[in-house]
Amino acid sequence: MRHEELADVYCSVGRTWSTVGERWTMMILRECFRGERQYEHFQRKLGIGRNVLTDRLHKLTEEGILERRQYQSRPDRYEYRLTQKGEDLYPVMLALMQWGDQYKNPTPPVRLVHKACGHDPLPTTSCAYCGEPFGRRDLTAEFQPDAW
Amino acid sequence: MRHEELADVYCSVGRTWSTVGERWTMMILRECFRGERQYEHFQRKLGIGRNVLTDRLHKLTEEGILERRQYQSRPDRYEYRLTQKGEDLYPVMLALMQWGDQYKNPTPPVRLVHKACGHDPLPTTSCAYCGEPFGRRDLTAEFQPDAW
Repeated sequence: MRHEELADVYCSVGRTWSTVGERWTMMILRECFRGERQYEHFQRKLGIGRNVLTDRLHKLTEEGILERRQYQSRPDRYEYRLTQKGEDLYPVMLALMQWGDQYKNPTPPVRLVHKACGHDPLPTTSCAYCGEPFGRRDLTAEFQPDAW
Repeated sequence: MRHEELADVYCSVGRTWSTVGERWTMMILRECFRGERQYEHFQRKLGIGRNVLTDRLHKLTEEGILERRQYQSRPDRYEYRLTQKGEDLYPVMLALMQWGDQYKNPTPPVRLVHKACGHDPLPTTSCAYCGEPFGRRDLTAEFQPDAW
């Protein structure tokens, strides 16, 4: 199977991974979540080839995760902004960050503060119905007959 | 910058992405989260080249996310099992799945049930301190001076 073909499997992890599961994609989105919007910033910060960066931005734009907007004319300049669909990838980034804080950085590089209560939220996955935090073993999974 | 160099940036997203942010890595872990352990299963299910699969399994084992264990001798056979460090990537997979359920599959292929309450948990990210669900705009971020 080719990576692109993941877009067609009947699996939500697979279809999402076909969109974000490549080198650099989440790193570009991380910059976007920090408020960065410009090609030159992405290129300088990540230090990656322009061909790779252009490819990733093109895919993210085509997917509706980023929107390419002109913000200046003469010369024309464009920026990349997160759409709502892009914003909704924030939990993915947060989960990546938490794992890295736990296993990769004795001193976390970023401290989050929950504005409402003033504390580090130590993001926890909870059940929307009963409110209890849960892990994998607290769940059962029911697959559709044709799930991949 | 090369992908491998992300392992050395002072950023938890970057360091995590250096480990899981390549084609197929999360798809292998998805199979592990479903209880699969064998090379031949991964290969058949994902339909990817043995060179790619071997490389990813080697990296995940070296990283301590999977453990390679002998389960049979004559002939010797090995399986790959999630360690606790691997289990702790479950929130990443859950976040990928949720986004896919929202944007990629009108009918979600898998329905999760929270055993404790019997309902779909619709996983929600909450503050461990005050218990309230939050999104990106409910947070401030304080960066260490040398954060990447």
